[in-house]
Amino acid sequence: MGNPTDIQVFEDHESQVRGYCRRFDTLFTRAQGSVLVDNNGRRYIDFLACAGSLNYGHNDPDMIEALIAHMRNLGLSAGLDLHTESKRRFLHTFTSSILEPRGLNHRVQFTGPTGANAIEAAFKLARKVTGRHNIISFTNGYHGVSMGALAATGNRFNRMGASLPDVTRVAYDGYYGSQVDTADQLAQLLDDPSSGVDLPAAIVLEVVQGEGGLNVASAPWLRKIAALARKHGALLIVDDIQAGCGRTGKFFSFEGTGVKPDLIALSKSISGFGLPMSLLLVSPDADQWKPGEHNGTFRGNNHAFVTATVAIEKFWVDAPAFEGEISQRAERVHDVLLELAQRVPQARVKGRGMFQGLDVRDGALADRILRTCFVNGLVIEAAGPHDEVIKVMAPVNTPLPLLDQGLDILRHAVMEVMSTQPSQPETWHARMVTASAAAEPWSQQLI
Amino acid sequence: MGNPTDIQVFEDHESQVRGYCRRFDTLFTRAQGSVLVDNNGRRYIDFLACAGSLNYGHNDPDMIEALIAHMRNLGLSAGLDLHTESKRRFLHTFTSSILEPRGLNHRVQFTGPTGANAIEAAFKLARKVTGRHNIISFTNGYHGVSMGALAATGNRFNRMGASLPDVTRVAYDGYYGSQVDTADQLAQLLDDPSSGVDLPAAIVLEVVQGEGGLNVASAPWLRKIAALARKHGALLIVDDIQAGCGRTGKFFSFEGTGVKPDLIALSKSISGFGLPMSLLLVSPDADQWKPGEHNGTFRGNNHAFVTATVAIEKFWVDAPAFEGEISQRAERVHDVLLELAQRVPQARVKGRGMFQGLDVRDGALADRILRTCFVNGLVIEAAGPHDEVIKVMAPVNTPLPLLDQGLDILRHAVMEVMSTQPSQPETWHARMVTASAAAEPWSQQLI
Amino acid sequence: MGNPTDIQVFEDHESQVRGYCRRFDTLFTRAQGSVLVDNNGRRYIDFLACAGSLNYGHNDPDMIEALIAHMRNLGLSAGLDLHTESKRRFLHTFTSSILEPRGLNHRVQFTGPTGANAIEAAFKLARKVTGRHNIISFTNGYHGVSMGALAATGNRFNRMGASLPDVTRVAYDGYYGSQVDTADQLAQLLDDPSSGVDLPAAIVLEVVQGEGGLNVASAPWLRKIAALARKHGALLIVDDIQAGCGRTGKFFSFEGTGVKPDLIALSKSISGFGLPMSLLLVSPDADQWKPGEHNGTFRGNNHAFVTATVAIEKFWVDAPAFEGEISQRAERVHDVLLELAQRVPQARVKGRGMFQGLDVRDGALADRILRTCFVNGLVIEAAGPHDEVIKVMAPVNTPLPLLDQGLDILRHAVMEVMSTQPSQPETWHARMVTASAAAEPWSQQLI
Amino acid sequence: MGNPTDIQVFEDHESQVRGYCRRFDTLFTRAQGSVLVDNNGRRYIDFLACAGSLNYGHNDPDMIEALIAHMRNLGLSAGLDLHTESKRRFLHTFTSSILEPRGLNHRVQFTGPTGANAIEAAFKLARKVTGRHNIISFTNGYHGVSMGALAATGNRFNRMGASLPDVTRVAYDGYYGSQVDTADQLAQLLDDPSSGVDLPAAIVLEVVQGEGGLNVASAPWLRKIAALARKHGALLIVDDIQAGCGRTGKFFSFEGTGVKPDLIALSKSISGFGLPMSLLLVSPDADQWKPGEHNGTFRGNNHAFVTATVAIEKFWVDAPAFEGEISQRAERVHDVLLELAQRVPQARVKGRGMFQGLDVRDGALADRILRTCFVNGLVIEAAGPHDEVIKVMAPVNTPLPLLDQGLDILRHAVMEVMSTQPSQPETWHARMVTASAAAEPWSQQLI
Repeated sequence: MGNPTDIQVFEDHESQVRGYCRRFDTLFTRAQGSVLVDNNGRRYIDFLACAGSLNYGHNDPDMIEALIAHMRNLGLSAGLDLHTESKRRFLHTFTSSILEPRGLNHRVQFTGPTGANAIEAAFKLARKVTGRHNIISFTNGYHGVSMGALAATGNRFNRMGASLPDVTRVAYDGYYGSQVDTADQLAQLLDDPSSGVDLPAAIVLEVVQGEGGLNVASAPWLRKIAALARKHGALLIVDDIQAGCGRTGKFFSFEGTGVKPDLIALSKSISGFGLPMSLLLVSPDADQWKPGEHNGTFRGNNHAFVTATVAIEKFWVDAPAFEGEISQRAERVHDVLLELAQRVPQARVKGRGMFQGLDVRDGALADRILRTCFVNGLVIEAAGPHDEVIKVMAPVNTPLPLLDQGLDILRHAVMEVMSTQPSQPETWHARMVTASAAAEPWSQQLI
Repeated sequence: MGNPTDIQVFEDHESQVRGYCRRFDTLFTRAQGSVLVDNNGRRYIDFLACAGSLNYGHNDPDMIEALIAHMRNLGLSAGLDLHTESKRRFLHTFTSSILEPRGLNHRVQFTGPTGANAIEAAFKLARKVTGRHNIISFTNGYHGVSMGALAATGNRFNRMGASLPDVTRVAYDGYYGSQVDTADQLAQLLDDPSSGVDLPAAIVLEVVQGEGGLNVASAPWLRKIAALARKHGALLIVDDIQAGCGRTGKFFSFEGTGVKPDLIALSKSISGFGLPMSLLLVSPDADQWKPGEHNGTFRGNNHAFVTATVAIEKFWVDAPAFEGEISQRAERVHDVLLELAQRVPQARVKGRGMFQGLDVRDGALADRILRTCFVNGLVIEAAGPHDEVIKVMAPVNTPLPLLDQGLDILRHAVMEVMSTQPSQPETWHARMVTASAAAEPWSQQLI
Repeated sequence: MGNPTDIQVFEDHESQVRGYCRRFDTLFTRAQGSVLVDNNGRRYIDFLACAGSLNYGHNDPDMIEALIAHMRNLGLSAGLDLHTESKRRFLHTFTSSILEPRGLNHRVQFTGPTGANAIEAAFKLARKVTGRHNIISFTNGYHGVSMGALAATGNRFNRMGASLPDVTRVAYDGYYGSQVDTADQLAQLLDDPSSGVDLPAAIVLEVVQGEGGLNVASAPWLRKIAALARKHGALLIVDDIQAGCGRTGKFFSFEGTGVKPDLIALSKSISGFGLPMSLLLVSPDADQWKPGEHNGTFRGNNHAFVTATVAIEKFWVDAPAFEGEISQRAERVHDVLLELAQRVPQARVKGRGMFQGLDVRDGALADRILRTCFVNGLVIEAAGPHDEVIKVMAPVNTPLPLLDQGLDILRHAVMEVMSTQPSQPETWHARMVTASAAAEPWSQQLI
Repeated sequence: MGNPTDIQVFEDHESQVRGYCRRFDTLFTRAQGSVLVDNNGRRYIDFLACAGSLNYGHNDPDMIEALIAHMRNLGLSAGLDLHTESKRRFLHTFTSSILEPRGLNHRVQFTGPTGANAIEAAFKLARKVTGRHNIISFTNGYHGVSMGALAATGNRFNRMGASLPDVTRVAYDGYYGSQVDTADQLAQLLDDPSSGVDLPAAIVLEVVQGEGGLNVASAPWLRKIAALARKHGALLIVDDIQAGCGRTGKFFSFEGTGVKPDLIALSKSISGFGLPMSLLLVSPDADQWKPGEHNGTFRGNNHAFVTATVAIEKFWVDAPAFEGEISQRAERVHDVLLELAQRVPQARVKGRGMFQGLDVRDGALADRILRTCFVNGLVIEAAGPHDEVIKVMAPVNTPLPLLDQGLDILRHAVMEVMSTQPSQPETWHARMVTASAAAEPWSQQLI
């Protein structure tokens, strides 16, 4: 099996596409809650949470026990979309404890277990329901990286006469500064029959843009967008893949805005344990699928259903209590980030809930801070067009002392970096930039 | 939690898109090896194997123990593309026990854990490497259902200046009968600068088309196609998502043909346990990714790496022995199918290895046979353009007595159906056909 | 031959697609200068000028004589792209009298004789030169209606590996009001690698948007856009199809702005006589065509070359004098429109030079005014998203008394319509609106 | 004006895209019938006929007189789609003398005056009528070079929610040799719901492929294709742009086959005089345009209507007589080509009527023959994927002595070239080949 400390095998045999492991260049062996451990026994506080897939931390003991019990009992692992006991329990729990208390009557579609697949399903359904092709999406939006495997598939039923979607890109809330109401701009584009913007099948948005740099849409803006969708016969799709499951403080990111999306995509933390799972929530009116019209082998990851059920039962049955815990932590994060923003020229705090970050306005600066954090035992990443927003994405239930400890490491890293000259040895980050074609700016969005 | 025998929750809360559960309308609770059990304690032999994702059967005890040990040891569950111990072990085992013995020096890319995502990655990479847009694919090919989430994503680095792929569809081996060499036809199209077929970035094919109806490409045809790809500067992509991992008798479907693909997509049974996992194997020349250029949150499903490692160690370290076992079972399937083909007018046996089926030339007839099988305790599905090919896709290591028992159920179902009048009560299948627009033929490919 | 006054043949045999003839429902038989005559001897002043293709009026006597001489001399009519004497004369005259005096060193490409074809050529060339796919175009832009005949053509050389262009739509100068600088918005989108806007092959614009409603881009905005194109490696395409050939007061619409486009499309009035002809002016750097790479049978309309040469010699050899004549007329138009704008609530004057109009803010109101004009002997149309801008597009050399007479008819129509109740009998315009699907607003842009 | 014999102006000022003039490198000044004259008084027989736009030869005296009379009478030149006297006469004459005698009740749509624009209109209409996106076209088909100016146009009405057409390419009659019935192959693809070929909006074809190398579809094949279109709810589009107007022996290329297309595109020789003009003939069922839904400034080229009317009155009122004349000439061409085919190894005669050619199987060989022809006073071009088919496209009414003289020049060129060594000095043709990227074969289709 070779030397267990040897990571040469990755250099030798894994594709060049690998990314995170270049920044966090050690071999991780164990994890629990908000802590990672490497093969040298070194301990890291986790402010990355598997890119938002571990909102409840690593290896929740109740989930482990439930999963072991499931296996010992020979429960199904993969089940396609067959009725299974674990799926039945999940569906019941999710409906009664998440949807119904929030006044949502959506039906649940189990899609292929990637966020992109839930988005694919949403686009297909929106086009089917409306008979239109255009999708409105927003600057800095991030909805996955699939681009057309369907084109190579022969089956006409699956293809739905598919031509690929046109996407019209418009400006997100605040993109052009606080003086410009970009919802009014979109209203004008849609009202104007010569604007060049075709009437859309759907408008897709994140309420907080994760990869885009923790940009937050205001409730009034969201209501305007929702009204535009309704007025023009388009479906409203909320991509809650990263912002959902408690990340922004509530289960759904749009709670409290008065907006009720037609389609809601969930993934990442929905299994609670980091297992691949994705859902599309479909309003009954829009549930116009024919049986089997969207499919995928791994729709029925029953292991994920088991842990997802535990996650809801453990954290969301008493939602106000859990929301309070998140809020308490979010405030602490906010306070520290506000303090740090004073130490970096032009810096600002962005985001909401446990989805906040420090925009230092400079990707190279952020990179130096992140590297210093890692050296000091904190795993943390950046987001934004230039990777200039240091993203605090700790598990939402991180114990307060650990959270403080992590924020301390961040604080010291900021101070250390700000006190030194910016001329630094070349980083892997910089190396990649150099390797890229000049016209194709490198980006660090690795998720 | 409601009555555990109640499947009303699915009717009430799951999207209309669900499919398999309509045919196999019971509540499954446990499974092991090639056997499924429902909540009434009823036992079913499994000739579906989760659409080919359970080639080694359900709940392999060694995999269960390894996974429990992993969890007890607090091994990571989700790990993005970080270096982890379970990933290191998998990479080492896969390289040394699968790739190297077969003379393959491909690098391993961990893609999002759906087959479609591995194909997406392959298309993107082929286009990047060649600077071309066109993808050649084949009649009855099946490569997933994603169609463009990327179009809605803002990041230019991920987009790669992406316009969506053009696909040119050409005829698979034997599509126009044995007299027409469709590889020669493709050669003519590529040689002719006015054929209307742009020079391709890649040619993508399955060596045995699963969803397409168990069509088998001959070795000479494959060699011609591979030579065409080479001649015209295109990459050859073999989609081994369903046909790989021993399904056709060898680990890879193309072993023994002399063809060495540039890119190979694996998914479905690669984890051995039905857990979501996908790989793209990339020849070193083609590994021109920049770090992070294709990504996805669930690339690092460490639970899957654990079971995948066990699968290789358990079944493929002594490949000849395991291939012998598969071969023995495949022959038995072949004999029974040949016998049954005598009982149905115009029927024929298709496929290879444990990837064989009975083409009864009539989807409605196949449907009656499959329903009779299920009533008698056999879970089995059809493939082909009209769902006319009854597909025997049992785990490749199904114990011989169970295999015989399953084949017996199939035999009796064929005999029973052939001896009765074809006028049957309306089925869910037929209902769906009726519900579909006349011009849009319904299809049963539910995977 | 049937009754010469009978227009039943159009009802019986012409496609429903016909449009202008529905509003101007008579049979025209003769025309000269700015006057049309119908088969009842009725005389109409022409403020339409064949949608801007007759900037110098109908049947210029010098052009007629030149064309008759050409035919009597058996000069070629159609000449592909062969060298002919008439083409040589045109090329020499155009270069020495139009391009060189304006400091332009562009090469002349003779495209298929429609404006759309010149734009097609521009897009293809921009994509070839830059290796990119995206085209930036603007709200309310109008660049023709072709959408992909090439896709059906087999020849690989002509196809250029063609996938079809992506277009990103952004806001034109002033689209969101005078407070919003849309050039700055575009700058932000192009600078932001996560904006979702791919770096473009070209930016295409009209300096005055004709069909879009006589929107005028300011010189500073144009310079910003030109600088953006340069900065980001994109070509700047000015579509001067309708705004060129003196319509805005100079030969080119961009004269005096300091902007030098890489590609300039001309059509409509370039022949001077209404004969089909189009040009693409190509900066030497961008002239990277291979011989025959863009083609078209009617590129060599030698009759058009003959009249085009006369037009330049007659009107543009002494450009300042002709520009003075246009300016004099433009002022008169401006004065009358300003006066009329007082009579219609919220109305405003738009446009520049002999390309001005009265925006009455209401398509139905404009329609009533236009109909009243026609009854009183004035042929005039509307533009804008809702056909709400009454467009004075008289020949730029209309004799002053005729111009005044036409403006008088317009003045009286405005007064008459504004003094009556708006409840009018249903019009052909309204009928078409009714016939259209509700969600697909009818538009009157018929050119 | 410079020296009238000077062609330097083209070198200096015309785009590199120019093609024909490189082969036929002289300055043409006059033309009549089938004869061209250059500025040195040199006389050339014309077997090119402006790429099929001068089926009745240059400068027909009756057309000249009619056009002069039209101008002297101040008839309109450009008329958009207004009712004009010349349009009325053309429409009446075309309907009564062309359509009705052939049992066709199509409506006439006047499109922008390029063949590509007629095809664009046909595709748009087919998609509108069927609600589908896919267009079936054939190997070696040629339908113009436009690829999406519409994408940049803002108006939603014109855009029709336009996503661009998908095209599925299938094999033309005889493409894979006489043993393979490609209509049966298409039938299989359309019947098979997993073939990967979406049900089409239209099937578009040329009955004789001009640019493709004078490939002729048989009547039984055409009937099969027409039946397939009907069966699958697709429109049949015949592109008669080059093959129509008598070129193949009848007015329409499909006469006598029993096929009645839904849409027929005409251009090139429809004006009779080489003036830009195009028509789309639309079966009444398919005429579902809304007013103004497809447009274009130069739809109303009244000069072309005048000469087109003369062409019909002069040549087609007594169709049998004219068809006899064409037939007589076609036989003579056929005889000579058959004779020449004996002199070139593997050569064969292709095509039909006055649309025949000699396939010498080698583009370089054809090039040497064509150059020799030009030196000896014959203007003639090649077609086919490798420009290997020498195309005799003389005016269909070429006087017999001239025809013989031209054929003699061709005969001597063939003999001269075949008797010399193939090692020739580098030609412009060869130079272009060399300049092209190796993977992008040069093609000579310049029209």
